[in-house]
Amino acid sequence: MEQRFMQFALQLAQTGKNQTSPNPLVGCVITKGEDIVGFGAHLKAGDAHAEVNALKIAGDKAEGANVYVTLEPCNHTGQTGACVDALIAANVAHVFIATLDPNPLVAGKGARRLEQAGIAVHVGLLETEAKALNAPFFHFISQHQPYVTLKQAISLDGKITASKGEQTFITGQKVKEDVHLARAHHDAILVGTNTVCIDDPSLTNRLSTTKKQPIRVIIDRFGKIPASATVFTDHAAPTWLFTSEPRELARVRVFVLDNCTLGNVLRRLADEGIMTLYVEAGCGIADAFLQQGFVQKMITYVAPKLLGSDALPMITKALPRPFKFDEVVRIGEDIKITMTLK
Amino acid sequence: MEQRFMQFALQLAQTGKNQTSPNPLVGCVITKGEDIVGFGAHLKAGDAHAEVNALKIAGDKAEGANVYVTLEPCNHTGQTGACVDALIAANVAHVFIATLDPNPLVAGKGARRLEQAGIAVHVGLLETEAKALNAPFFHFISQHQPYVTLKQAISLDGKITASKGEQTFITGQKVKEDVHLARAHHDAILVGTNTVCIDDPSLTNRLSTTKKQPIRVIIDRFGKIPASATVFTDHAAPTWLFTSEPRELARVRVFVLDNCTLGNVLRRLADEGIMTLYVEAGCGIADAFLQQGFVQKMITYVAPKLLGSDALPMITKALPRPFKFDEVVRIGEDIKITMTLK
Repeated sequence: MEQRFMQFALQLAQTGKNQTSPNPLVGCVITKGEDIVGFGAHLKAGDAHAEVNALKIAGDKAEGANVYVTLEPCNHTGQTGACVDALIAANVAHVFIATLDPNPLVAGKGARRLEQAGIAVHVGLLETEAKALNAPFFHFISQHQPYVTLKQAISLDGKITASKGEQTFITGQKVKEDVHLARAHHDAILVGTNTVCIDDPSLTNRLSTTKKQPIRVIIDRFGKIPASATVFTDHAAPTWLFTSEPRELARVRVFVLDNCTLGNVLRRLADEGIMTLYVEAGCGIADAFLQQGFVQKMITYVAPKLLGSDALPMITKALPRPFKFDEVVRIGEDIKITMTLK
Repeated sequence: MEQRFMQFALQLAQTGKNQTSPNPLVGCVITKGEDIVGFGAHLKAGDAHAEVNALKIAGDKAEGANVYVTLEPCNHTGQTGACVDALIAANVAHVFIATLDPNPLVAGKGARRLEQAGIAVHVGLLETEAKALNAPFFHFISQHQPYVTLKQAISLDGKITASKGEQTFITGQKVKEDVHLARAHHDAILVGTNTVCIDDPSLTNRLSTTKKQPIRVIIDRFGKIPASATVFTDHAAPTWLFTSEPRELARVRVFVLDNCTLGNVLRRLADEGIMTLYVEAGCGIADAFLQQGFVQKMITYVAPKLLGSDALPMITKALPRPFKFDEVVRIGEDIKITMTLK
């Protein structure tokens, strides 16, 4: 029964998917015996937390109730009041916490305050599921790096374009829409010098269903990209340029790093609060991210084509680290493979 | 209603899957008004045809009945009596035929004999589905070539082995079992010189669930494979060797072709009644089959690995002819992609 309630709380948490950033997804269920007396989720940064929303519904029935929450209730007063205070004030009896806060400076403090107030606290129910629900959040907090999704579109034989320096549209319209949606659901999108020089992409989300635009992050260490590039001139979304060559570009935020390594770029992005990064990679960027262990998730679209040995490969270097297929679906005439790196 | 009965006949035909070779799958449904009064399928070469089995159930009720059959009833007396005679003798009223016999010498003759006997004949109901049901049979009869399934196991970046001359096991145990089952379900299996020289495979089906063994077809134009190769010495299944170099090998059937081209090999295999051919291809054989248009179906297993640019590719030549993904499923830790060539 306890597991079922926590499962429901995890489901509720999903309600806020793609709309809570930079906050994590959280769900909460309040029960009295077998009955659910309240439930809620965190829906948007700045709005009420899951526990507070659930308590609103439960009202007086929260007294002596059991609370199931997918993440440790906060002990600090941020934009909203601390959740532990609300739970203590409501006089609940038990609090089941799926997982503690990933921030080592805060972890356990919320749980301890509840216990000190005489509430029975149980940690670890469906912990794996709760961590998976907020994988980017946990990664971001614990590693101080964005959660990186590496996206590529390839032919069945692993090629990204028929010949170097040319743009080939390998996959179809449905993949394009899926990519635009993914752009909208990430804090930032990253490409390298070659992609901008060859494709001159706008890198915006051009879906009619959502207007969200990610920050466009360009790594151009040697300042090779012309000032006329679309990402610099269209002002359709913020553009951040990481380079070792100082330059002035109207309305482009330029980060000059003496040592413009991926590690340094990612750390700087984390400083700026970028939690999820969508990397639309050519061969060079893909090799660099994969070889340095900076990829958490990989999305590869596969088209029913064979481009042959003269075509440009998705990567050039073998990856000794294993990964695993999480999901494989057909999308239009193509296939979408989602993987996580172990 | 007519469509529903033919659909049922098509389903029944599937009952004989992988057990009727070299005969096609055929299903038959006999109805009187809204009622089904008989049904049957062809289950094994030499055993009764679908129409005869259905008539056995229908008995006297076949008189004045409607018959739905997925392939034109035969007009010739083979191992069993001609089906048209049985239908005429049963005095049925209507015969719905999904598709005519693919053999141009016979096509339409069965239908004509039924009409001459005063039976109303309707051809073409669910014709596409009926042809797809027996794609290998239709291909074999109309092209006088085996229906070729090209199978490869690759890494995500399209490589079949880490380095030339070495055998790498890319995919897992579940794929192995699936391959053995596929071997059992084909008339013959084909490999080239390199596969035998490098892997020295047995190419047998080693499943406990079925004992069927395909004929092992080896193309070794220049006689490079040593006489000690497993396929020549284990006698675990018939081995046919196609070569331009005459040689003697105990219990191996040697086909010496002056011009040992794929086209000539395939024609010779068709002469021998090989309807379905499973090609376990390295890079050279895959290029040859694909470039010459000899592949009808392609099965590619994909492992969650990246082998890099120094690894051996699945093919080297681009394929201008498009193909399409028919099915994508996960199999163990790998993916199985089934495609048809257009």
